[in-house]
Amino acid sequence: MKTYAEYLTMVEGALSAQLASLGEIPQQLFEAMDYSLSAGGKRLRPVLLLAACDTLGGSLEEALPFACALEMIHTYSLIHDDLPAMDNDDLRRGRPTNHKVYGEGMAILAGDGLLSAAMELMLRAAVRLGDLRGVRAAEAIARRAGVCGMVAGQVMDVTGEGSEPTAEKVDYIHRHKTADLLTAPIEAGFILAGADTVTVAAGCEFGLQLGLAFQMVDDLLDVEGDAATLGKTPGKDAAEGKLTWVAVKGIAQTRLDAAAAVEQAVRALDDVSGETNFLKTLAQTTLNRVQ
Amino acid sequence: MKTYAEYLTMVEGALSAQLASLGEIPQQLFEAMDYSLSAGGKRLRPVLLLAACDTLGGSLEEALPFACALEMIHTYSLIHDDLPAMDNDDLRRGRPTNHKVYGEGMAILAGDGLLSAAMELMLRAAVRLGDLRGVRAAEAIARRAGVCGMVAGQVMDVTGEGSEPTAEKVDYIHRHKTADLLTAPIEAGFILAGADTVTVAAGCEFGLQLGLAFQMVDDLLDVEGDAATLGKTPGKDAAEGKLTWVAVKGIAQTRLDAAAAVEQAVRALDDVSGETNFLKTLAQTTLNRVQ
Repeated sequence: MKTYAEYLTMVEGALSAQLASLGEIPQQLFEAMDYSLSAGGKRLRPVLLLAACDTLGGSLEEALPFACALEMIHTYSLIHDDLPAMDNDDLRRGRPTNHKVYGEGMAILAGDGLLSAAMELMLRAAVRLGDLRGVRAAEAIARRAGVCGMVAGQVMDVTGEGSEPTAEKVDYIHRHKTADLLTAPIEAGFILAGADTVTVAAGCEFGLQLGLAFQMVDDLLDVEGDAATLGKTPGKDAAEGKLTWVAVKGIAQTRLDAAAAVEQAVRALDDVSGETNFLKTLAQTTLNRVQ
Repeated sequence: MKTYAEYLTMVEGALSAQLASLGEIPQQLFEAMDYSLSAGGKRLRPVLLLAACDTLGGSLEEALPFACALEMIHTYSLIHDDLPAMDNDDLRRGRPTNHKVYGEGMAILAGDGLLSAAMELMLRAAVRLGDLRGVRAAEAIARRAGVCGMVAGQVMDVTGEGSEPTAEKVDYIHRHKTADLLTAPIEAGFILAGADTVTVAAGCEFGLQLGLAFQMVDDLLDVEGDAATLGKTPGKDAAEGKLTWVAVKGIAQTRLDAAAAVEQAVRALDDVSGETNFLKTLAQTTLNRVQ
């Protein structure tokens, strides 16, 4: 196993190159896509994919295109989410959002391009692998990013704004908008490493609980954090009538629920034979941001 | 081989069902996607895919999810293309465009959803097929719809508006914005039928020439057609400074070039052993619209 920083370095070193490997992309399009793709951040999803694959002794080289594809999907969702017709954000990670730099039309196309590029990269990698692991890993990522996954969560988030927050609605949004894209790397990473069905299911449970904890912590930070730590304006969720766990359960209960979710995530890996300490520790670290 | 109407019936009967087969899609999202997906039209791309597969004796049942996926990709591109930040169209096939009915935010998500659904459908079908044909067919479609294909053509179309029309620019846009998505069904259909590399290449040449002819005819119709036949306002391309073949070559030469492209398309299939008459006739019919 490697350190988080080492996986991160692998991802950072590969993202633009993987995109460019697809062929002759028109320069304006490449620039717009690469602007957001190279904006940094924790790269949590691709790091999780590499670490998950590594946990079970899989090949990091084989996993790398899938890790980069997942970050491209995450990035496309941010570009489209920031558009005036959606969240209308001017800043992302301290820089002007994609449409502020390239215009709305190009931002829509850059998002479409990143999603397309992600799928193309995974399919090319799957053809190269030559067995069904690549197709199954790509299918898991497409499913969790798709109309019953991330896009579904996004729709409920957008249409739910300002409506009465209920535990059921918030849970749906958190499962799909956030947890699905944190489960995808574990599911795909385990599949690429050749895991059996039971192990993949354990990985998915880990990803779900990690994702729920992650979003609860995010909701807490929006209430308790300051702009400097957050890199964005705190209190924005409440101001916009967003459906959050804190709005339904209050701060104290959200802290307890987040801790319980992390515990469930860790327990889910108890019967997985592999170097699970990295993933377990990473889940526990999620809570440090608010405790 | 079947008739065009029979392939069309297969597609029309499967589109919404294939989308619904993906699982529990939020109702508002499903409605917005299905509104545009069920809007009718010639269904040229999915019909071509079924016919291409049938030409070489492949299984129509195996090809159907790929045909539907391709129509979903075509539909997502129309929804995003119609947005105010892009072509800003209020009508499509005589009905209000997606964002006019569901709002811009939902239209963006419906487009994202259709592209995601297309990829998910193909990947599920590829897992079921269990050999590499499905992955290779999906890869061909993703590549031709992607950042070196349709999205690239769309970018050059949007950024080229109002600039000096040159044969090089127009050829690039036609190859990628139009021909790539008409080549994809032939390439994927042939791959699914188990064709060898030489046959797939012949199919791609057919698709390219058909696509170029198709777009030249479209450019001619925009100059010569009337609103009733077109279902849209004629003269729009010129008014918006669109880069068209007619703008570069004039009407007479465009007619000649379209006829030559159809001839090349037909010739490309001469060495393909299979029931190629359907595809050849379909290519020739392209010209009937303007002759």
